[in-house]
Amino acid sequence: MNTHAQMSNIGVIGLGVMGKNLALNIADNGYHVAVFDLDHQKVIATVEQEQAERLADKAPRMLACNNISEMLNNLATPRVIVLSVPAGAPVDGVCQSLIEAGIEPQDIVVDTGNSLWTDTVEREKNYRSQFKFFSSAVSGGEVGARFGPSLMPSGDESAWKYVAPVWSAIAAKVDAETGLPIERFEPGNPVTQGEPCTAYIGPAGSGHYVKMVHNGIEYADMQLICEAYQLLSEAIGLSAQQVGDIFKRWNQGSLNSYLMGISAEVLQQQDPLTGKPLVEMILDKAGQKGTGLWTAVSSLQIGCPAPTIAEAVYARAVSTQKDLRVQLQHKLAGPQELSLTDSEKAEFIDNLEAALYCAKVSCYAQGFQLMAMNAKEQGWTLNFAEIAKIWRAGCIIRATFLQSITKAYQQDPQLANLLMADSFNQTIAEKHLGWRKTVAQAVMAGIPAPCISSALAYYDSYRCETLPANLLQGQRDFFGAHTFERTDKPAGEKYHLDWSAPQRTLSKL
Amino acid sequence: MNTHAQMSNIGVIGLGVMGKNLALNIADNGYHVAVFDLDHQKVIATVEQEQAERLADKAPRMLACNNISEMLNNLATPRVIVLSVPAGAPVDGVCQSLIEAGIEPQDIVVDTGNSLWTDTVEREKNYRSQFKFFSSAVSGGEVGARFGPSLMPSGDESAWKYVAPVWSAIAAKVDAETGLPIERFEPGNPVTQGEPCTAYIGPAGSGHYVKMVHNGIEYADMQLICEAYQLLSEAIGLSAQQVGDIFKRWNQGSLNSYLMGISAEVLQQQDPLTGKPLVEMILDKAGQKGTGLWTAVSSLQIGCPAPTIAEAVYARAVSTQKDLRVQLQHKLAGPQELSLTDSEKAEFIDNLEAALYCAKVSCYAQGFQLMAMNAKEQGWTLNFAEIAKIWRAGCIIRATFLQSITKAYQQDPQLANLLMADSFNQTIAEKHLGWRKTVAQAVMAGIPAPCISSALAYYDSYRCETLPANLLQGQRDFFGAHTFERTDKPAGEKYHLDWSAPQRTLSKL
Repeated sequence: MNTHAQMSNIGVIGLGVMGKNLALNIADNGYHVAVFDLDHQKVIATVEQEQAERLADKAPRMLACNNISEMLNNLATPRVIVLSVPAGAPVDGVCQSLIEAGIEPQDIVVDTGNSLWTDTVEREKNYRSQFKFFSSAVSGGEVGARFGPSLMPSGDESAWKYVAPVWSAIAAKVDAETGLPIERFEPGNPVTQGEPCTAYIGPAGSGHYVKMVHNGIEYADMQLICEAYQLLSEAIGLSAQQVGDIFKRWNQGSLNSYLMGISAEVLQQQDPLTGKPLVEMILDKAGQKGTGLWTAVSSLQIGCPAPTIAEAVYARAVSTQKDLRVQLQHKLAGPQELSLTDSEKAEFIDNLEAALYCAKVSCYAQGFQLMAMNAKEQGWTLNFAEIAKIWRAGCIIRATFLQSITKAYQQDPQLANLLMADSFNQTIAEKHLGWRKTVAQAVMAGIPAPCISSALAYYDSYRCETLPANLLQGQRDFFGAHTFERTDKPAGEKYHLDWSAPQRTLSKL
Repeated sequence: MNTHAQMSNIGVIGLGVMGKNLALNIADNGYHVAVFDLDHQKVIATVEQEQAERLADKAPRMLACNNISEMLNNLATPRVIVLSVPAGAPVDGVCQSLIEAGIEPQDIVVDTGNSLWTDTVEREKNYRSQFKFFSSAVSGGEVGARFGPSLMPSGDESAWKYVAPVWSAIAAKVDAETGLPIERFEPGNPVTQGEPCTAYIGPAGSGHYVKMVHNGIEYADMQLICEAYQLLSEAIGLSAQQVGDIFKRWNQGSLNSYLMGISAEVLQQQDPLTGKPLVEMILDKAGQKGTGLWTAVSSLQIGCPAPTIAEAVYARAVSTQKDLRVQLQHKLAGPQELSLTDSEKAEFIDNLEAALYCAKVSCYAQGFQLMAMNAKEQGWTLNFAEIAKIWRAGCIIRATFLQSITKAYQQDPQLANLLMADSFNQTIAEKHLGWRKTVAQAVMAGIPAPCISSALAYYDSYRCETLPANLLQGQRDFFGAHTFERTDKPAGEKYHLDWSAPQRTLSKL
């Protein structure tokens, strides 16, 4: 830490909710922070909040800057400047302003926005001669930013050594023994013990890629929970309150996660206006900001199956088409309702718990395989045990489950797919029948469960030594002469049957 | 048709299998064709084939060109030049050569390759001052190109009037009464009666977009048939020959399609090398050329649910990971095999026929909705009855089914979704229980059916007036303050609950 009283240790540009909270978090951890925003009201608000929350015996740690030059003049060198501005053009806009204000080649700019990873790769190249463009994805929303996010930094390793101490300080912390988050949300009293949820991910862009996949998994995880809610409501007729109780119980077991916990809270929240369950007053049109669809697009482009993530993105799309659904509801035939006895209802609930667990493993398997395949394509070396570790706290998908993933990758860093880990496939062996029954009953009851069922189709596809793609290659050879390989000949040898000739002859190409 | 003996009516550049066959098809229809390829052997081969196939009493109609200038000098004006070169850089390469050789602003270049539709949009702008860049997607493989493809032209309407007569002549034809293809594959004796499978689609890029979606549907259609093959093989234990018999029977009914027909042929083909069923000797790794994944990517980007198309792309990806599947086969637990009586087997087959039909409607509904949503975004006016019409013959997805789609859009050109058409939703009402039982049995038997089941989840999602996206919006508001709308307040009004405060208060933003 720089001890020169007039110099700040770090700058933060962009004081929206994320930037302001990151700045306050950094200050809480003893650093002097210079802050700037085009909207000077936000600068004042940030400084005032630091003042209000600071313990009486401490000196101010937040310096309000009127412009970028003032920030550069007040930072110790090499300067470390954190950007928290919207992804896209604004990032380049600030970079240009920094260049005009005289940023120097050894200075470091850390982009913490939700940038598309390929943009990050480009920027690292474009700005290399002017400053070190570093990036760090941030997960955990506004509370995470304030009291401990999960941080996924990537880029020039010589820059990382200047960022690392700050990042370790402000990151969420995990109890090293239990692997559980240490949650304390007190201004001025940051968590200083435990393992920080940050680790250097790899070359430029890799941190944002990993964060993007995190969000893709998050989409699927959220949708899985929503499907469970609909199944419990419609197949068993439970109230939102009752579903919340079940989620609370599940949150004590292997399904423990931040998302399960908040889902229970949402379901049991009373609407301040009507007194009804709030969830029933919320319009069922889901928004999205793009990282889920980027993940699905990436999986399609590199040929990595991630159907459960894609289904989650599509489920949000269907939800937005409410007018069409309202019309189709009266047009499309459905089955009779299930009519379950009490003991069948209890079994349904247990099966659904098993289904959620298995589907979750399947969807994390998709996400981790996607990271591995893209890393291979990009020439990155990713440490998946570390990635699972830094997702154990601070981020939206934090869950005890991540501790199991961490262990699986610690045991075998080269794991080709999470389903290969005995810890997971043995648990699925105990639970898959419940998963299957859940999907079968959902289908017979006419209740959509696109993610739970696509996760099962993914699992069953990988159980097949032989898939019907042999017929598919036959079709392709028939209509397009696309050729095929043979099971009894060396890989790579291409064959074609002359399907249109009267005597169909086989030729080797 | 130009009658000046020395001048050709149309030029073809690129004489791979598609270009050569298009040139022969055009010549068969009475046009004089100037042909060029960088590989002069291909020019000679094309001219020789025309000579060999031409009836003795006819004059030659194919002119071999040694270079592009020679072609330009031998074409009547305005010149119409068909490109059949690989998508991407080669298209621009030929365009540059045409400019250097003196192509004129009123001349027309028709790109028939598998170009990405956004590239076509760009090219139309870039070349506008030098010539008219027109495009026409072609479906039907090599046989289609030779004897009648389905053609999807788009671009400048003033160019279309010069291309239209040729296109109408060479396109596949449909019997106007029955809607069935008129199939005659005889050199020198083209089909001249019937409705041609071509229609002006719309502004630049729209034809290639429509063709891309055609291919996305084709991916799903092929995969659905493959899933039926695996279910019949594994759940009932039928041989490839027996499955072929069932497909032949289905091909007489509402599942009639080119793909169903060739699938039966592939299944019943003996391997010339081993005498076994050929399909069992074909390696189960499916290739792909990109149009399926482009379709899925486009659907994600514009927020149109197309899960069955995406699942088909992913199914090909899983198929390529054979090594991983072989390893996982021994690791992943599955259920016991179904043990069906003969009457249960017969019922299984009938249910599967119903499932395939319903899943097919679902996947075409996805494709047509995707075209409609992208057309809206691009400002195109697409005529879906015409599009369904020109897919009734010549292309890979040709099927009697397309006649029903044609009628549905003729009755209601503004149909929001194919599922809204009574002709389809009434048939599904009769069949959906079979569809449900098929998925339930596949799941209980551990046989993957990703497309059949995702098509059902799509259908059931649209049956829901209320989806659990209300909980999802609650989750998003909880962790990210993303706000929600209320069912009891006007659309567009945003609400947020202060979830982290002790007293959770609701605010309107």
